[in-house]
Amino acid sequence: METVSENRCFGGVQGVYSHASETTQCDMTFGLFLPQEAADGPVPVLWYLSGLTCTHENAMVKGGAQAWAAEQGIALVFPDTSPRGDGVADDDAYDLGQGAGFYVNATQDPWKPHFQMFDYVARELPSLIGDTFAVDLDRQSITGHSMGGHGALTIAMSGVTAFKSVSAFAPICNPTCSDWGRKQLGAYLGDDETAWAAHDASLLMADRGLDCPVLIDTGASDQFGDLLKSDALAQAMAARRQEGAFRMQKGYDHSYFFVSTFMEDHVGFHADALWG
Amino acid sequence: METVSENRCFGGVQGVYSHASETTQCDMTFGLFLPQEAADGPVPVLWYLSGLTCTHENAMVKGGAQAWAAEQGIALVFPDTSPRGDGVADDDAYDLGQGAGFYVNATQDPWKPHFQMFDYVARELPSLIGDTFAVDLDRQSITGHSMGGHGALTIAMSGVTAFKSVSAFAPICNPTCSDWGRKQLGAYLGDDETAWAAHDASLLMADRGLDCPVLIDTGASDQFGDLLKSDALAQAMAARRQEGAFRMQKGYDHSYFFVSTFMEDHVGFHADALWG
Repeated sequence: METVSENRCFGGVQGVYSHASETTQCDMTFGLFLPQEAADGPVPVLWYLSGLTCTHENAMVKGGAQAWAAEQGIALVFPDTSPRGDGVADDDAYDLGQGAGFYVNATQDPWKPHFQMFDYVARELPSLIGDTFAVDLDRQSITGHSMGGHGALTIAMSGVTAFKSVSAFAPICNPTCSDWGRKQLGAYLGDDETAWAAHDASLLMADRGLDCPVLIDTGASDQFGDLLKSDALAQAMAARRQEGAFRMQKGYDHSYFFVSTFMEDHVGFHADALWG
Repeated sequence: METVSENRCFGGVQGVYSHASETTQCDMTFGLFLPQEAADGPVPVLWYLSGLTCTHENAMVKGGAQAWAAEQGIALVFPDTSPRGDGVADDDAYDLGQGAGFYVNATQDPWKPHFQMFDYVARELPSLIGDTFAVDLDRQSITGHSMGGHGALTIAMSGVTAFKSVSAFAPICNPTCSDWGRKQLGAYLGDDETAWAAHDASLLMADRGLDCPVLIDTGASDQFGDLLKSDALAQAMAARRQEGAFRMQKGYDHSYFFVSTFMEDHVGFHADALWG
């Protein structure tokens, strides 16, 4: 593993690291914030999955999460959103290929060799981070924005990891019924829609839900509101009596100005579960 | 004036606006955060001047200031760091020309026609903002980072505006004695160094100081520490018995991770003066 950069930040360290991934068969870069407390031993960890077009860097520099993570003594991980590089398949569209991995394991060419983002985020990267840094894998929570909100919810409901809490900012809620989803799930997983259901937060919520609290925030003025299909997830959460809250925030859009505004709430929500 | 964008942010609005500037003779873009309280009447305003290579956008998305400005009910202005455009002089170096206006009024060609950033930031933009938005020009404070810290200190000590408080993050403190300064002051103001003194915070501090509190934060691990000449300003502040604090922060570098870490302190410091 290579250290790309380390900067002192809110008493801790904001690092960026790269490594050769076995899962995605290419070099992957991620951001990791460790609070001051990590110098004394393993700390709880909150995963932040980013949205379309993002790298590991966007939320790391624009989300404002470190202030609150430092206050709460928890680590933050910012994975990339896809495999990258000259040898990795791509598409001219912003919402397919590099920067748009959708947190699935592709079964279709040309994506299959590298686009294994579900396994990368849910399995390889936690193991690597747990082996290398002072983070406590028994205390993990997960959040994300847009495509990353979809990733957080679907990875959590896969059951691979017993997260203490799950949240999302403006998640893609029902990708099997949205132009943010049908195109990508078709490309990565093929035409058989039965394979898509494992990556649809609303269908998973209806089917199994989560054994931990859930917090969803979405802007009422989100310019991509029609693509998110928030109503499907809100309905499924209420029907299941899922512990948690689905909040619609008046006047807010899809930007990091929205995300950063509610970051304190989300980090506090996760800290309550991680330290509880 | 044209609205480039407006996003709901911490209960207020983060706007970006552009206008044809009489001072710089080109279109200028700036960011303005208005807290919720601005809907009810004029609010105090804190200026944030950015450093080399920055536009209006860097601090606006990476500084994390809106959280604290919203809490304190004060507005934030993020001006650009230079005139820009095809018809505007430039230099291949990152530290001269576009993105590097140094907050002076150039007297030398080819810079003179557009590089009038002192007058733009100290005179034209405050007037425009006071006429257009709910900000109270009788309650202004100023801060900045690196070249922008230099700008904040030197504009404040020019006496054009009676700021309530002045701060800086890792300011260029003594540009007449630094490679971050001699080259630019020579290019913009000519070879006569007597003209440079009005733009050197340490010389101004020795000569006149400020009638308001001053807060300086600089990282002890700043990778540009040798260029900042922090000791000259610290010495001048102490010699003058200037009200304020000069703090050296162990382990921090020159990045926005440093700036955002101490933003709460700075906004709180200014809020005390603006509301006091």
